[in-house]
Amino acid sequence: MTNLAVVLVATRNPLNIGAAARAVANFGFSDLRLVDPYDVAFREAVSAVGGAHVLQSARVFPTVGEAVADCSLVVGTTAGQHRVPQQTVELLQVGAARLREHAGTAALLFGSEKFGLSNDDMSFCHLLMRIPTHPRTPSMNLGQAVAVSLYEVVREEVRPRSSRFEDMAGTDAEQLTKMLHEVLVESGYTNRITAVSTDLKIRRWIRRLRVSRRDAPLLLGILRQILWKIRAGR
Amino acid sequence: MTNLAVVLVATRNPLNIGAAARAVANFGFSDLRLVDPYDVAFREAVSAVGGAHVLQSARVFPTVGEAVADCSLVVGTTAGQHRVPQQTVELLQVGAARLREHAGTAALLFGSEKFGLSNDDMSFCHLLMRIPTHPRTPSMNLGQAVAVSLYEVVREEVRPRSSRFEDMAGTDAEQLTKMLHEVLVESGYTNRITAVSTDLKIRRWIRRLRVSRRDAPLLLGILRQILWKIRAGR
Repeated sequence: MTNLAVVLVATRNPLNIGAAARAVANFGFSDLRLVDPYDVAFREAVSAVGGAHVLQSARVFPTVGEAVADCSLVVGTTAGQHRVPQQTVELLQVGAARLREHAGTAALLFGSEKFGLSNDDMSFCHLLMRIPTHPRTPSMNLGQAVAVSLYEVVREEVRPRSSRFEDMAGTDAEQLTKMLHEVLVESGYTNRITAVSTDLKIRRWIRRLRVSRRDAPLLLGILRQILWKIRAGR
Repeated sequence: MTNLAVVLVATRNPLNIGAAARAVANFGFSDLRLVDPYDVAFREAVSAVGGAHVLQSARVFPTVGEAVADCSLVVGTTAGQHRVPQQTVELLQVGAARLREHAGTAALLFGSEKFGLSNDDMSFCHLLMRIPTHPRTPSMNLGQAVAVSLYEVVREEVRPRSSRFEDMAGTDAEQLTKMLHEVLVESGYTNRITAVSTDLKIRRWIRRLRVSRRDAPLLLGILRQILWKIRAGR
């Protein structure tokens, strides 16, 4: 996964180069390459917070061919939904999977802010991919496009180890039910005649609430305090 | 899917508000809300290319509570991997799924560039989520974080209708094999004695190449021309 080079072709705005460098660092990559950037002062970009090391080690090449010379897979990005290039355009998910599974050095190409990749640039690509943006506003900001693309490349690596919600035990639920019942009776909300059906309602309601194991003692404490206050006030 | 409000809390840089607006438009949303932005001139942000309509209709609220008053699900974002807040932090994939599947209006909260969401802001959240960034550079640029988050929300909606690679037919492959064989013989690469084993090698090699149905005639034409040239030269 470390052998992915992000290649920015003819980027105009140094801020975008900085933003791209930051995204490269954010997703654990480090190889940034620039082809013929408009502004040679790009290393000053302030938007590279946290990605300064990526920006400092970025390499500049005169042509796309030279930038991808060591890459055995070259994937280009395009916003084009309407344009029909001479090459197949896959969705980001498909392209990112190819990059992720590639053995060897791969390059991910982004064109200039204004024109994207040229047909000449694209001819170096084994695959073109597009981010599934809305047809009304398909064109993304360069730094954002780099971030979304790299996120998709690493996405599958990160398995969601969902920190499971731990429900309270049955004894907690029952204690809460009893305590709330007492509070409702003591506060006059429920009279002792309807108390039996209320008891069932409360039992169901407490379980619908889904109180966590950690929160059950808190809620119990609150109810206990209310009960004490009501009884003390009499 | 249209009932998702992106809420930026105490954003400092108007460029980031513009970038967020663009991402909102890019992924087909339109509801942008700002809580107490530092710079009231945010509507001038030039980074909102394509998202100007989102920026123009953005609403400003004095507090988080007011901004999410109509939202039945509030999801907060955090870069915190080390911080242990009082709430569960899920991965982006989990949080985005909740937002996608939510019936009713949902809010997605982003804190300020410098401090993120405060504990007070987070207390309005049903769920916190984090983008799986690299531990060494966990903190993302605000506009990029908005883009990645919204991409993940819509990601599943977009089924990759992979434009399948259409392989050439067996007859094409065989024609190519025959033609290349002739070229190799005519050019002296292969002599007629070893030609039989070469024929098998070429047949296998042509199939490993995976020439597409569309490209087969092109390659055939090239070989035909080479053959003509060699014979004409004798």
